[in-house]
Amino acid sequence: MKTEPPGNQHASPLGVAAIGYAFMGKSHSNAWRNVASFFDVPAFEQKVLVGRDATQVAEAAAKYGWAESATDWRSVIERKDIHIVDICAPGWMHAEIAIAALAAGKHVLVEKPLANTLGEAELMVAAAVEARTRGVRSMIGFNYRRVPALALAKELIAEGRLGTIRHVRAAYLQDWLADDQSPMTWRLRKETAGSGALGDIASHAIDQIQYLTGQTILEASGVLKTFVTQRPGPGGLEDVTVDDAAWATFWLTGEMGASVEASRVATGQKNSLKLEIYGTSGSLTFDLEALNELNFLDATVPVREQGFRRILVNEPEHPYLEAWWPQGHIIGWEHTFTHQIRDFLTAIAADESPSPSFEDGLQVQRVLDAVEASARNKSTITAVEDKSLVSEGA
Amino acid sequence: MKTEPPGNQHASPLGVAAIGYAFMGKSHSNAWRNVASFFDVPAFEQKVLVGRDATQVAEAAAKYGWAESATDWRSVIERKDIHIVDICAPGWMHAEIAIAALAAGKHVLVEKPLANTLGEAELMVAAAVEARTRGVRSMIGFNYRRVPALALAKELIAEGRLGTIRHVRAAYLQDWLADDQSPMTWRLRKETAGSGALGDIASHAIDQIQYLTGQTILEASGVLKTFVTQRPGPGGLEDVTVDDAAWATFWLTGEMGASVEASRVATGQKNSLKLEIYGTSGSLTFDLEALNELNFLDATVPVREQGFRRILVNEPEHPYLEAWWPQGHIIGWEHTFTHQIRDFLTAIAADESPSPSFEDGLQVQRVLDAVEASARNKSTITAVEDKSLVSEGA
Amino acid sequence: MKTEPPGNQHASPLGVAAIGYAFMGKSHSNAWRNVASFFDVPAFEQKVLVGRDATQVAEAAAKYGWAESATDWRSVIERKDIHIVDICAPGWMHAEIAIAALAAGKHVLVEKPLANTLGEAELMVAAAVEARTRGVRSMIGFNYRRVPALALAKELIAEGRLGTIRHVRAAYLQDWLADDQSPMTWRLRKETAGSGALGDIASHAIDQIQYLTGQTILEASGVLKTFVTQRPGPGGLEDVTVDDAAWATFWLTGEMGASVEASRVATGQKNSLKLEIYGTSGSLTFDLEALNELNFLDATVPVREQGFRRILVNEPEHPYLEAWWPQGHIIGWEHTFTHQIRDFLTAIAADESPSPSFEDGLQVQRVLDAVEASARNKSTITAVEDKSLVSEGA
Amino acid sequence: MKTEPPGNQHASPLGVAAIGYAFMGKSHSNAWRNVASFFDVPAFEQKVLVGRDATQVAEAAAKYGWAESATDWRSVIERKDIHIVDICAPGWMHAEIAIAALAAGKHVLVEKPLANTLGEAELMVAAAVEARTRGVRSMIGFNYRRVPALALAKELIAEGRLGTIRHVRAAYLQDWLADDQSPMTWRLRKETAGSGALGDIASHAIDQIQYLTGQTILEASGVLKTFVTQRPGPGGLEDVTVDDAAWATFWLTGEMGASVEASRVATGQKNSLKLEIYGTSGSLTFDLEALNELNFLDATVPVREQGFRRILVNEPEHPYLEAWWPQGHIIGWEHTFTHQIRDFLTAIAADESPSPSFEDGLQVQRVLDAVEASARNKSTITAVEDKSLVSEGA
Repeated sequence: MKTEPPGNQHASPLGVAAIGYAFMGKSHSNAWRNVASFFDVPAFEQKVLVGRDATQVAEAAAKYGWAESATDWRSVIERKDIHIVDICAPGWMHAEIAIAALAAGKHVLVEKPLANTLGEAELMVAAAVEARTRGVRSMIGFNYRRVPALALAKELIAEGRLGTIRHVRAAYLQDWLADDQSPMTWRLRKETAGSGALGDIASHAIDQIQYLTGQTILEASGVLKTFVTQRPGPGGLEDVTVDDAAWATFWLTGEMGASVEASRVATGQKNSLKLEIYGTSGSLTFDLEALNELNFLDATVPVREQGFRRILVNEPEHPYLEAWWPQGHIIGWEHTFTHQIRDFLTAIAADESPSPSFEDGLQVQRVLDAVEASARNKSTITAVEDKSLVSEGA
Repeated sequence: MKTEPPGNQHASPLGVAAIGYAFMGKSHSNAWRNVASFFDVPAFEQKVLVGRDATQVAEAAAKYGWAESATDWRSVIERKDIHIVDICAPGWMHAEIAIAALAAGKHVLVEKPLANTLGEAELMVAAAVEARTRGVRSMIGFNYRRVPALALAKELIAEGRLGTIRHVRAAYLQDWLADDQSPMTWRLRKETAGSGALGDIASHAIDQIQYLTGQTILEASGVLKTFVTQRPGPGGLEDVTVDDAAWATFWLTGEMGASVEASRVATGQKNSLKLEIYGTSGSLTFDLEALNELNFLDATVPVREQGFRRILVNEPEHPYLEAWWPQGHIIGWEHTFTHQIRDFLTAIAADESPSPSFEDGLQVQRVLDAVEASARNKSTITAVEDKSLVSEGA
Repeated sequence: MKTEPPGNQHASPLGVAAIGYAFMGKSHSNAWRNVASFFDVPAFEQKVLVGRDATQVAEAAAKYGWAESATDWRSVIERKDIHIVDICAPGWMHAEIAIAALAAGKHVLVEKPLANTLGEAELMVAAAVEARTRGVRSMIGFNYRRVPALALAKELIAEGRLGTIRHVRAAYLQDWLADDQSPMTWRLRKETAGSGALGDIASHAIDQIQYLTGQTILEASGVLKTFVTQRPGPGGLEDVTVDDAAWATFWLTGEMGASVEASRVATGQKNSLKLEIYGTSGSLTFDLEALNELNFLDATVPVREQGFRRILVNEPEHPYLEAWWPQGHIIGWEHTFTHQIRDFLTAIAADESPSPSFEDGLQVQRVLDAVEASARNKSTITAVEDKSLVSEGA
Repeated sequence: MKTEPPGNQHASPLGVAAIGYAFMGKSHSNAWRNVASFFDVPAFEQKVLVGRDATQVAEAAAKYGWAESATDWRSVIERKDIHIVDICAPGWMHAEIAIAALAAGKHVLVEKPLANTLGEAELMVAAAVEARTRGVRSMIGFNYRRVPALALAKELIAEGRLGTIRHVRAAYLQDWLADDQSPMTWRLRKETAGSGALGDIASHAIDQIQYLTGQTILEASGVLKTFVTQRPGPGGLEDVTVDDAAWATFWLTGEMGASVEASRVATGQKNSLKLEIYGTSGSLTFDLEALNELNFLDATVPVREQGFRRILVNEPEHPYLEAWWPQGHIIGWEHTFTHQIRDFLTAIAADESPSPSFEDGLQVQRVLDAVEASARNKSTITAVEDKSLVSEGA
């Protein structure tokens, strides 16, 4: 018996195009290839993978499960059989592609950061707001919201298990630039990357702080530092123009404080997004290097038996986990994307706005901007820009 | 540009059939669906998924990436376009299917345990030995050999980094039967399951002990226990006829000792295969619930700075890891199967015997048998049966 | 204003003599020197420290807070101003000293093991039983019962928080004999030490298993191994006649199983008494190398939030802790002795039998004996000897 | 044979007076009572404990091992038989007592903080500098420098094992004020306590950052927060006038960055001084709640085997540990004071300046002052005041 495409058999399948086949393209492709094997999602087809180099993108498409490859994203977003555009290209390309795709009536998923500049991000939000009136959906890829342990954290906090949250201590630490002979890349130039550790990884921590607690950053104070100011390029030493490490202290609504430390030179830390959330009735800690675990302290049980409990977030009772393996069979980092696409598809099918929105992406961008301004001005505390546009979209 | 099937484009793709679509069928299917996206393997096609219930297997096939479904494994293994048979059916069906498939010239991958009885296992080994002379390959699915952290452990031990290993302390602890109201299943009947915690999970620990250290178990002493002797079935309470927990002490070649404790009633332990390996120059510890980590103590460094180091086994320098994500982006349990299929396919392409062999499966079976005999006889130490057949195959 | 001796000012202070000034003598002296600074105990005086070498014991006495030193224990136990004899001498001297001291009407605290032979241990129990009728108290030094975290474990189990305990997985691992050039000592000769890892450290684990769960070992199965059979002595290589490592499986009252692994060659493990206790409603784990912590899993809370919680046992609500420092200021190993002496003195003042009793010591000895017999007989399961005497004392 | 006082028998013993018998008085007394039992120190006598309440101080003196008690510190520091004054009184009394004691020719150990105001601290340093010319010694009690694990950290860094240190991430987290019904105390009033979490606990982290790395803080940026602004006092609600939590980012010599987060409302953290030190060749992490452990990553070993190693700092090869118990027998928090007094006495005997000096205390005070100024001025980065006086003393 021949098998049918997965998912809803009655609707015609949604056609998907992905743009970019590097690290993020590989990650998103993996999610598209697997999501329907685990979750009940609307029918879709991995139609086309888009990239600049025809040979390489063809190879990647074959490897990653796409029916076709292409090099011109403009013609792809015009295709009638394409309903979804997944943008995994570098940040400086986001605005142009996303705005065009939304205009063409395609649902858009875009990798974080929303854009490299605040101006571009604002244009994207405007486009998303307008498209929404036409039922065209958009989403920003803060994929760590889909770590089951962090989704559980969100639930516990929303249920009031932590009481009033007083402060969050966060860090995102890596070490892939610890070696000062590590070569120059586009990620180390301001014009292509926007910023360094701040935009690339601190942004995840900032999104989590606001998302998990439900509070909004009002004020930011920051310090940025480039430890290795020149790195070897093909033609000799080149200037590094983004930060290797960033420190920020925040003040949020709800009388809440937060700190974030981000570094790409934290020797021995590989991909460690660390969160510590302290409330009046309980606390949570998390480390992305052990992403199947959440540590929860319930301060309402008798003192004698209080302690951080390591919850292995692998039970059917936990967010997303019913779809996977029996308890204790841990899942990997890549399924943050699988879950993201599941939620994106589900929202499209339900004709609802997926979350996080472009507005959420813009708001994080504004926080990053405030940190940079504070760092530039030698740390005068800097108010996060007026958020009227954000509240409109909320 | 249309994409081509993955892998080697020149050879005609290997046709794969999988038998079984429950937990193991889902796990193996996932591996087949993804292996070519990460590893350079010979071309193959997920042809057909076989199961007893036509509707359910059709649904599973669609979900898990198989082109067709079928209910009659006999006709499937006769098909010319099928070159590989992956047996994920329960243990009591292994012998019949495997022997028939090998006779039909199909390469066979079979889930552990090799069989439910020693007699069946011996017939399977005989079939595998014979098939090998025809270039037909066979492999038993001790998938934890493909945990990158354990593959690294194997490398370190083989390089002599632990010196002479004196003893191994192992356990495999779960708790899915801790609740005595948990219902009766085929896994709790001796005639269908062969044994309980002993065969299901202690077998993994036993394989690891021998595989990692390169030593062979000579003597076994064991205790078995069924804590919950009756469980609710559809028509009332039924007798549980396999063990809930098992204890075994082993003596191996190389003057090495080992202990294994296996339990399905170890409340709070979800899927915890724990290994502690103590040598004259170093030690290793591991826990499957944190399978991306290996703890290594190097006793040749000055005492002042000795300590178990937590190696996050996620670097390109680590086994299998170059194919995956950047450092610190951990992978899940399911990829032990992805790696297993990668190695199986690679061995087929190279016209070599994949490892572990059916003989390895039989030898573990004999160890389990000795443990049961010891338990039955109130713990007279029991020699593991003559291993001449094993050495032939080695 | 001159200060008075600590404790109860009305009664005349109890005079204490300690015998032995090596590792255990130093540990006990430390406890005597400090106990009254933290706990409200009857008044006592550190009168005299006894040892074989006059110069060394004088030095030790000065260092450890004793008013005098002496070399003849016989005359010391006859002194009218001595009311308590604390025996820290090697095991082969215990019986003679303890029996004489009890006969002389002195309260006796004796280090574990109770004695090196079962015969001696039985004589000691007889003496203790008789002395008890005269109000003369005796206690065996299983000091780990006074680790606050284990005392808390005891409380939780006694309150039923673990439900019915099904099995305990225990180990006591050290590595001070891992180096095969480590020299010969009296601890490695059967005639002076009784046994090796079994009596020295497995005995602690065995006591904990029975004490914490309240169950009694009925059957034992054991394996002993000497990995390094000769070690350098002053005049060349000498034979090691005790075990380097021991494995035992136990069956207890209450349908409970337990395993103990003890080793002095477990490279990288320094002083790691590990306990894992699995019950129907909860579980506990503990490691002596982090003795201020107890991990508790409460299986009665919703699955979604279950996990082993690390309780830092340093709150005033925890056993013994009110006497110490503010929360989170951890205490050291040595205070297991401080608490032991506090409880010993408190029982004496209350005219009650301190716990654990000599009978408890004898019962552990019988278990050790059964393990040795099982190992000798190639592991026939060995019943623990009739315990009638024990029940009398209970 | 009567025992002699411990230590050097030839010199007449040093007479010691301690002022204060609360938490710190108890801690210091414990150290004085025990130091000579473990370390070879000059002979001394615990002469007199001074406190305001005659009855209570008499009781404390008896309990803690002091020969006498007194209520008037002025007359005590004049006594000829007193050579050392150990100041454990609250911060606002430090200056007056210390200056008087130094003038009287007594060696002075003073608890941190050096004083509550910068002015007082400067006067104390002037007095110490002058006294030093007369051979009169002074020391500030940053006792965590004497945690063996941190002393080992200092050694490793000094040997260059971390290469160039780029940044330190530190926190000192407690939760004893998490409950907003926790009562008012002198520690929560600016006039008695000087500051809150900042001076009390962040000061320890700041001292460690500078001490361990050998770098000096140049610039500070800070935020302070009082979450619970009123607390119940005897006569109703009273205003809390110090911070519950403090955040600071620092820039140091050597192009090094550092952050410190201090909180007394971090629910579930009991006494957690956390340090993470990232260098070009290695990294260290530490947590005071597990103070016998140091985690060290050596980035010069092959990547394949890199990982944070948990060193149990309990070997004779480790700082201070030769005096204590066999390996793996952990020591408690209180012995940071024992080691401090050992080093203080040793320096006195050697006629050398003990470390840390009053100058070190003053420098930390200046850093705290800069943090407060930054917080007050809404975070303009604030230079740490001119350190000319410090360098004079160095």
